[in-house]
Amino acid sequence: MSPSSSSSRKEIRDLCVKSLDEKMVGTTEKNIENGNGFYQYFFTNFPDLRVYFKGAEKYTGEDVKKSERFDKQGQRILLACHLLANVFDNEEVFKAYVRETINRHRIYKMDPALWMAFFTVFTGYLNSTGSLTDEQRAAWMSLGKEFNEESQLHLKNSNLPYVH
Amino acid sequence: MSPSSSSSRKEIRDLCVKSLDEKMVGTTEKNIENGNGFYQYFFTNFPDLRVYFKGAEKYTGEDVKKSERFDKQGQRILLACHLLANVFDNEEVFKAYVRETINRHRIYKMDPALWMAFFTVFTGYLNSTGSLTDEQRAAWMSLGKEFNEESQLHLKNSNLPYVH
Repeated sequence: MSPSSSSSRKEIRDLCVKSLDEKMVGTTEKNIENGNGFYQYFFTNFPDLRVYFKGAEKYTGEDVKKSERFDKQGQRILLACHLLANVFDNEEVFKAYVRETINRHRIYKMDPALWMAFFTVFTGYLNSTGSLTDEQRAAWMSLGKEFNEESQLHLKNSNLPYVH
Repeated sequence: MSPSSSSSRKEIRDLCVKSLDEKMVGTTEKNIENGNGFYQYFFTNFPDLRVYFKGAEKYTGEDVKKSERFDKQGQRILLACHLLANVFDNEEVFKAYVRETINRHRIYKMDPALWMAFFTVFTGYLNSTGSLTDEQRAAWMSLGKEFNEESQLHLKNSNLPYVH
């Protein structure tokens, strides 16, 4: 599989990693907010998808901001994005991490179309804080395209609903 | 926190990543065996630790080899090692992945001393197939030392048993 643009995997990796400089994971208040902030953005802009968060189906962005659950969930999803970015130039490791992510989400019975949609949401979040260049967005969408291709293949191979 | 030897994080990263060249994750028979093989080595050489694998407490290496459970578990642990190696030069991402790993293992109530011990087992596995240089082993033990430091700090901060 080749990257979907003329950029090399290493260039895409570096652009994505760089775009996360101001969204570092960690244990400081700022680090925690970097992750929680993703869910504030998500719940505010994509309220229909709150249905996947049992008990938080009616949360507003303000509710998310005060929620310890979304402090933790925010770190988890932000870490996943850092890992995806950092290993993008190690293709087999990247694809293995995609499959692992799909396996861990099996219990949530997600619409398989959401795996590609995630990258629109995530780049929207990065952009909402003014830190995403056009080149970085394109890099994330290239990464997302490969993420999605491996996701759908793995869903198919696992006899689960997938996008053709 | 500085690396424990005079090698830079990037050098340690590259040595660890290189040591996994012949232990790639993936979906081929060889890839699956790369992960299952770790547990064959583990169960054969550290039988006392089988107690953490419910239902497999008396498995021999041969039992592991035939086990689909350990095909899957093998991919998971091998992927974790690839991720740790690949992101070692991104210190905050590395430490966040360590904490995430600790969180996911909370339910198993492991002896906290096992987090450092793991790297003796893992390098033993890599060495058992003849593919580990002394320099690569030292790099893995440096990585393991930092893994363990972040583990024990996180266990302490989580009010769980930890090694002083």
